[in-house]
Amino acid sequence: MRSAQMNSAGGKDVKQTILPHGIKKAIIVDKWTLSDIECLAIGAFSPLTGFMEEADYHTVVETMRLANGAVWPLPVTLAVDADEHDDLVPGDSILLRGEDGVDYAILQVNSCFVPDKRREAELVFRTVDLAHPGVKKLFEKPNLYVGGPVEILQKPRPERFSDFYLTPAETRERFRENGWKTVVGFQTRNPVHRAHEYIQKAALEIVDGLFLNPLMGETKSDDVPAQVRMKSYLSLLENYYPHNRVLLGAFPAAMRYAGPREAVFHALVRKNYGCTHFIVGRDHAGVGDYYGTYDAQHIFSEFAPGELGIQLLFFEHSFYCKACQGMATTKTCPHDKDSHMTLSGTKVREMLRNGITPPPEFTRPEVATVLIAGLKASK
Amino acid sequence: MRSAQMNSAGGKDVKQTILPHGIKKAIIVDKWTLSDIECLAIGAFSPLTGFMEEADYHTVVETMRLANGAVWPLPVTLAVDADEHDDLVPGDSILLRGEDGVDYAILQVNSCFVPDKRREAELVFRTVDLAHPGVKKLFEKPNLYVGGPVEILQKPRPERFSDFYLTPAETRERFRENGWKTVVGFQTRNPVHRAHEYIQKAALEIVDGLFLNPLMGETKSDDVPAQVRMKSYLSLLENYYPHNRVLLGAFPAAMRYAGPREAVFHALVRKNYGCTHFIVGRDHAGVGDYYGTYDAQHIFSEFAPGELGIQLLFFEHSFYCKACQGMATTKTCPHDKDSHMTLSGTKVREMLRNGITPPPEFTRPEVATVLIAGLKASK
Repeated sequence: MRSAQMNSAGGKDVKQTILPHGIKKAIIVDKWTLSDIECLAIGAFSPLTGFMEEADYHTVVETMRLANGAVWPLPVTLAVDADEHDDLVPGDSILLRGEDGVDYAILQVNSCFVPDKRREAELVFRTVDLAHPGVKKLFEKPNLYVGGPVEILQKPRPERFSDFYLTPAETRERFRENGWKTVVGFQTRNPVHRAHEYIQKAALEIVDGLFLNPLMGETKSDDVPAQVRMKSYLSLLENYYPHNRVLLGAFPAAMRYAGPREAVFHALVRKNYGCTHFIVGRDHAGVGDYYGTYDAQHIFSEFAPGELGIQLLFFEHSFYCKACQGMATTKTCPHDKDSHMTLSGTKVREMLRNGITPPPEFTRPEVATVLIAGLKASK
Repeated sequence: MRSAQMNSAGGKDVKQTILPHGIKKAIIVDKWTLSDIECLAIGAFSPLTGFMEEADYHTVVETMRLANGAVWPLPVTLAVDADEHDDLVPGDSILLRGEDGVDYAILQVNSCFVPDKRREAELVFRTVDLAHPGVKKLFEKPNLYVGGPVEILQKPRPERFSDFYLTPAETRERFRENGWKTVVGFQTRNPVHRAHEYIQKAALEIVDGLFLNPLMGETKSDDVPAQVRMKSYLSLLENYYPHNRVLLGAFPAAMRYAGPREAVFHALVRKNYGCTHFIVGRDHAGVGDYYGTYDAQHIFSEFAPGELGIQLLFFEHSFYCKACQGMATTKTCPHDKDSHMTLSGTKVREMLRNGITPPPEFTRPEVATVLIAGLKASK
């Protein structure tokens, strides 16, 4: 029960401290919610300025749009315990306190409502299966959503690599300084293998710069830890990318694993960071077999051209082809699977965890070294 | 003198045949002009419907626009001998007859004018140097330009590969049949080496189809003959491209070697063929050292976004990099020149003519075999 409670957004153990004037109470929020607060505060989730109120929540779930019609595909909500916080009413202000005791933000309560979580799961995740990590998370959360604007008091401090936690204003400024008029954003929660490098570079060929923007918030427990990945990105960029064409920045958000809808979300967020283009590969933000391989590309056809304000670049499955003697995708290589070197993500993680270096056609040796050392240390 | 005459657009040896009613005279036109007639007839040069009249010619040379304001960067003109044809007046109709005696088209004369060729050379070719093949051609042509709409009587028959001479209406239909909503066009007058293949495939990754559209009209005498190139393209596509992603079509036009302006021209023509994207690499349509390496990319900034109706994809110098263990460009590879395998076009032609197969990182072995055999046969 303890771990379930720590995972829930609104805990019960609110410390009794003296509250600032006008604040009704403090609510303990978990790391997942903290990453939302950070993204809201830095403008990564623009036009959102706080947790969703009922009208926006309803249209977002039903139509992938805010109540004003702007595209927004995922709920960004604060869930609190309905029994404990049934005294909250619109007009209240509450402190959002971390599990570390730090007061990170003030929420001005405009809306308290009980969501239809089943409906949310069906429409956002396309499943109500509790084996889906996003659905599991959703149903573990308490049952009262509290919405309203968020005022940041203190940005969460990353444990490491704080130099890479750039705000959208900062990345836009860097792009401008570099003279990049067009920038392609790449979202990842995994190490960058040659297949990803190929896609990034194919995109980079037609724009001015690449914004490698790994997600650093909470992910599934079997994903490679963010700190290890970050080291591997640095090693890769050092050895295989021109320094003047790439910016590495951390994306503080957590993974939702909402597949297609999360791809739209990732694109909109990267527009906020100043990207003009965004890469969507196969099974973007997917998990298990919940989404079709290219569902996260197809969903973009539901919006009018130009409506998202960012150009999508769709890529198919990529691999090293022995007949092509180079990297390719099913779109550019005519040879059959016997010529293709492919390894599943699970297989590669297993190799790396066992200290085995994958073939250089699959993972750059410098990157493999970092990952093997990192995974050994994090055991 | 004979060869100079055969190269000029308006010859003197008009056969005395019985002319159709309403036709004032027949004028012999060379292959270069015939390729223009074909391009006009099939709609490749749309919105042009004939040889330029004085108003369009003037604004095209001075401003890269037709008199009505539409972008058009190159003169498309019919030059005839001023002394011999001083009897032509607006309102006349003339036959355009090939050197093979075939009457290919009727020109309705709307405009007869003497061009300022020096000005044309300075603005179109950015040089008046007669060592420039386009400038040489311009000054070899006779001195009277005759403009007006062209009505095709007989399309020129290609010597070989006639199946690949698709009209813009036909290519657009093929694209539609293939379900390609986005198609990138690639212009070439050379064999496709791995450097070009890399660029084509990088572009193909982000669109639905590739239209490989080699120029088959007149080129410099030291370029690889069109028929040999065509065979090499077929071998390349057979072995290294997915059949359902590429269409090979012949572009009947002649080379102007006008560098930047010809790049704009090539883009507009490919829009007519139904392409949504067009690749411009380094020194596109250039010759010698007349143009800066990326001038043919920079020129597109002179037009408003969307004005050309086709999206440009600009690529830098590409090569095989031993450190990257793959193809790359100066934009995606951080390694120094020692790691790069590069061969000049001249060097490769020399190797091929001497029966030497270039390294596989430079030319696909199947392509090299075809080129070596073709160049041997065409000696």
